[in-house]
Amino acid sequence: KCCLLLDCLALYVYDVLLLFISFFLKQSAIESLFGASLTGIAYSLFAGQPLTILGSTGPVLVFEKILFKFCRDYQLSYLSLRTSIGLWTSFLCIVLVATDASSLVCYITRFTEEAFAALICIIFIYEALEKLFHLGEVYAFNMHNNLDELTHYSCVCVEPPNPSNETLKIWKEKNLTADDIFWGNLTVSECKTFHGVFVGSACSLHGPYIPDVLFWCVILFFTTFFLSSFLKQFKTKRYFPTKVRSTISDFAVFLTIVIMVAIDYLVGVPSPKLHVPEKFEPTDPSRGWIISPLGENPWWTLLIAAIPALLCTILIFMDQQITAVIINRKEHKLKKGAGYHLDLLMVGVMLGVCSVMGLPWFVAATVLSISHVNSLKVESECSAPGEQPKFLGIREQRVTGLMIFVLMGLSVFMTSVLKFIPMPVLYGVFLYMGVSSLKGIQFFDRIKLFGMPAKHQPDLIYLRYVPLWKVHIFTVIQLTCLVLLWVIKASAAAVVFPMMVLALVFVRKLMDLCFTKRELSWLDDLMPESKKKKEDDKKKKEKEEAERMLQADDDTVHLPFEGGSLLQIPVKALKYSVDPSVVNISDEMAKTAQWKALSMNTENAKVTRSSTSPEKPVSVKINFEDEPAKKYMDAETSL
Amino acid sequence: KCCLLLDCLALYVYDVLLLFISFFLKQSAIESLFGASLTGIAYSLFAGQPLTILGSTGPVLVFEKILFKFCRDYQLSYLSLRTSIGLWTSFLCIVLVATDASSLVCYITRFTEEAFAALICIIFIYEALEKLFHLGEVYAFNMHNNLDELTHYSCVCVEPPNPSNETLKIWKEKNLTADDIFWGNLTVSECKTFHGVFVGSACSLHGPYIPDVLFWCVILFFTTFFLSSFLKQFKTKRYFPTKVRSTISDFAVFLTIVIMVAIDYLVGVPSPKLHVPEKFEPTDPSRGWIISPLGENPWWTLLIAAIPALLCTILIFMDQQITAVIINRKEHKLKKGAGYHLDLLMVGVMLGVCSVMGLPWFVAATVLSISHVNSLKVESECSAPGEQPKFLGIREQRVTGLMIFVLMGLSVFMTSVLKFIPMPVLYGVFLYMGVSSLKGIQFFDRIKLFGMPAKHQPDLIYLRYVPLWKVHIFTVIQLTCLVLLWVIKASAAAVVFPMMVLALVFVRKLMDLCFTKRELSWLDDLMPESKKKKEDDKKKKEKEEAERMLQADDDTVHLPFEGGSLLQIPVKALKYSVDPSVVNISDEMAKTAQWKALSMNTENAKVTRSSTSPEKPVSVKINFEDEPAKKYMDAETSL
Repeated sequence: KCCLLLDCLALYVYDVLLLFISFFLKQSAIESLFGASLTGIAYSLFAGQPLTILGSTGPVLVFEKILFKFCRDYQLSYLSLRTSIGLWTSFLCIVLVATDASSLVCYITRFTEEAFAALICIIFIYEALEKLFHLGEVYAFNMHNNLDELTHYSCVCVEPPNPSNETLKIWKEKNLTADDIFWGNLTVSECKTFHGVFVGSACSLHGPYIPDVLFWCVILFFTTFFLSSFLKQFKTKRYFPTKVRSTISDFAVFLTIVIMVAIDYLVGVPSPKLHVPEKFEPTDPSRGWIISPLGENPWWTLLIAAIPALLCTILIFMDQQITAVIINRKEHKLKKGAGYHLDLLMVGVMLGVCSVMGLPWFVAATVLSISHVNSLKVESECSAPGEQPKFLGIREQRVTGLMIFVLMGLSVFMTSVLKFIPMPVLYGVFLYMGVSSLKGIQFFDRIKLFGMPAKHQPDLIYLRYVPLWKVHIFTVIQLTCLVLLWVIKASAAAVVFPMMVLALVFVRKLMDLCFTKRELSWLDDLMPESKKKKEDDKKKKEKEEAERMLQADDDTVHLPFEGGSLLQIPVKALKYSVDPSVVNISDEMAKTAQWKALSMNTENAKVTRSSTSPEKPVSVKINFEDEPAKKYMDAETSL
Repeated sequence: KCCLLLDCLALYVYDVLLLFISFFLKQSAIESLFGASLTGIAYSLFAGQPLTILGSTGPVLVFEKILFKFCRDYQLSYLSLRTSIGLWTSFLCIVLVATDASSLVCYITRFTEEAFAALICIIFIYEALEKLFHLGEVYAFNMHNNLDELTHYSCVCVEPPNPSNETLKIWKEKNLTADDIFWGNLTVSECKTFHGVFVGSACSLHGPYIPDVLFWCVILFFTTFFLSSFLKQFKTKRYFPTKVRSTISDFAVFLTIVIMVAIDYLVGVPSPKLHVPEKFEPTDPSRGWIISPLGENPWWTLLIAAIPALLCTILIFMDQQITAVIINRKEHKLKKGAGYHLDLLMVGVMLGVCSVMGLPWFVAATVLSISHVNSLKVESECSAPGEQPKFLGIREQRVTGLMIFVLMGLSVFMTSVLKFIPMPVLYGVFLYMGVSSLKGIQFFDRIKLFGMPAKHQPDLIYLRYVPLWKVHIFTVIQLTCLVLLWVIKASAAAVVFPMMVLALVFVRKLMDLCFTKRELSWLDDLMPESKKKKEDDKKKKEKEEAERMLQADDDTVHLPFEGGSLLQIPVKALKYSVDPSVVNISDEMAKTAQWKALSMNTENAKVTRSSTSPEKPVSVKINFEDEPAKKYMDAETSL
């Protein structure tokens, strides 16, 4: 029990960090911290599926951004309109729960799921890189420095030669004239306040060139990415005992951040740091914790708000349910079942609460939830090297989720520690999260097939049954959808984004026309790859068995071999490889007790041998699947 | 033939680059270029083993440095003394050739070889990192910048408040007083010439802080290292056709340098660039191309020079012959044989020529030679994925070596191109060379064993026969020798360094006392690992065969299995792995023609199957060696 707690500690730390990061990158106002903590605690206590982690997701933020722009253009109070839309959305969500709408998730197939998950991953990666590029603008460096001229370089603040009206107004407000200000003594920020002009060879367009910071940020960013990838993979290395390796692997991201913070502190370059609010009060002190849905807006906005609320509901429904579908996948072997209705109810209710209090809206965040579930995986221990650990299930509980949000709420008291964390390190972790989440997505495996010669293709189940060109068409359609979604998200038409996510489901339905049902069942199915393959192998085996039975009256020694249907494919230049598993003893032998005893012995012996010798440099090796062979043997002995 | 030339082009480019780099890092005077070109062309045309690449190696440079210090202390002419020592060394080398001293190389075992090669690799890595650290001193950055104060930052040149006598002398020489100089207008280099003082918040100890350059260099350095490693490993990736992949892999270092030069050019940060001499004349214009061995020195220096020459001879002999032994290793499968005597003769003669002309001395450089041989490897083409390419031999010829040195000589005319190459990129390649050369050294494999739990240990032949603690003792002794060599090289006692390298041979002899002959034959033998293993497996097989023959009168069906001696080792938790190769058909079957035909068929079938399915995610896999199995089968069928 004590060990389980220690095990879980790693997960807590990891998840807390993940959420922190995703969260501070979005907005670091006290409202976010409070809202996330409140909603998260309620959700993890009462939701049907507490494994999903809430966050303010990209699509919802896009919606809020459009709304804000609309309010500014039409002189409406943003917070009040947002509250009324939020209340409508909350109501609509509850209606959806009441009308059993969550049962529609059955139309969300792997196609939709993966397109959406891929989109989220790409947003993660894109945002991490974009933020790095953004640093390049903030921290401009002198591209064509002449090192010999450094003695002549300076950038000082001077009086603007032709002050604009706006500038004059600012001076007037502060009761100053241009002569009262000692321009030469002003710091960068003061100079900007007084609308001074920067003059000198060390000046960029918007102020002095900033030395070192940008390149140091680049170093921090990529070091964080590579270090966390390296530490995460440490589990599969040969050195150190298993316990040490798995601990390092579990705490990979945390360790990376600690190391990078220490390095950054020692080097001392003023890289941008994490900003954490210090007091518990609204960002805008003039507003309270309760927002009126009407405020200064005209009364009819209360009714009109139902239209954007409809869009918002679709968005939240899709976002929440796709994530839930991904988490509830069969391959995760969840035992406690899903709770689509209860989940949506919780999200809807908390959305109303958040709206009234002027807090951000929270729905299930795809990447965070996947990371959370991955970090809760239980795998079988393996004593022999080379043995792949078996996936046993997920530690289904409410503690990790709850802890994350409690700690999130408590983070206001950790200001003194958190302010040492450089932002590029967090961006690096963000990149790592995006890239590592890509791994599990079949869609990307299929994209990789484009650049792969046929002989190097992995043995994927759908490649066995669907012609390659059809697989490619399927991938291209999915890719087109993804690109369209991206374009819409980035363009002015972003408001129809939720509709487009919904449209994915219809695109998938249309594909019934150009693909056969059988093909789609291979390409677009929730059953995990390995299970399908096993069943496929079993079927083949049975067929063969039947054929063999037909020939059984033949008295001569016969040597059956599995995978016989592949016999006709010729192979060149592999003279040294022989697979002895194809030579099999006759049925008579199989039935003798002596054979059985021996086979058990030799099984152990061989296993030991290959486990003590996983590496022999020059001799030719072949990866060979023994699962089917074992099955075949079982079939034989039980004949 | 055309293809061979194209293939070789990659190697030329690679080698030329390697030599360039190692060479420009040492000294970039015209003497080096000319000397390397002259010696190299002569060596590659006439030497017995033209695969070794000459260079000015670390140990020889250390010797020259000590000599220079000695001459300065005792007011002797360095160049003349060096010439007389060089002539003596040349004479002694020829004496060594005449007395058949090269036959002593038989005492250079793997122990000595690897300690020396490891030392050279570590020097490479250390120098690359040291040069990067050195950049940190040259390009000092402001560690505690306050970004808001940037408007106040500047660093200007002012008149020194209390000019020293030396400073006054310099002013006098230029007919200037302090008042004649416009201090504020001076550039950094001018300010340094006039011994001005740098004043301002942007000043480090020795001049203005230099922005961006250091961090940019760090980025260039590590990007070069990782990119060249990545491109080199591209051969084993799954994407693109084999031809594309192997081309990328062959040109990895060249591509990396091109990419990095382009990036550096685009970013425009003034990183330190490669400096190539523009005119063909001695660095010191006052000396001619011929140096007298006496010069201004007293006559007895001619005789005394014989003593340092003796040390120098040992050094050059060891350096040359150890490298030659490494290149002539059995595992390289050279067909044209070695030429220890002719090699040493060429080195000796050219050493005399270089001494008289005042050029650096050149001996076989270990890392460069290993890289050269590695890049000339011929490997069997493999059509099936998972098949390891078989090493066939080395392209033994004189063309690559000759081309390298011709191009080196012509590099004086490539100034306009070479001056774009940033130094950190070359340091990065240096690091890559050092690290990649470490891979082939068994000594490091044994060091790794310290941190590896027993169950993860690879199946190394010596681990089968020598107890682990004895392997560890052997490694510790070797490590101690290496550390001692390093300490001596770095300390004031560097002059005895050649003796210490020689001492390695005696340490190895002493080890006969605490290790049995049998153990040493496993730990310290030139026979390649795989060959030993094969023979070991064969022996075991024969023994077993004999045992089996004794039981042959027994009439019941018996199932022999190879590796039987390992039967008693128990295995847990690996229930799903079964190795069908252990089930073998009886002798009777083996002798029937029907069996043979079938076994051939099934062999092909199985191979195809595993080649089309190299990846099946969840099912348990085992790497299994089929070489021994094949042997065993051959033994059976030929029974």
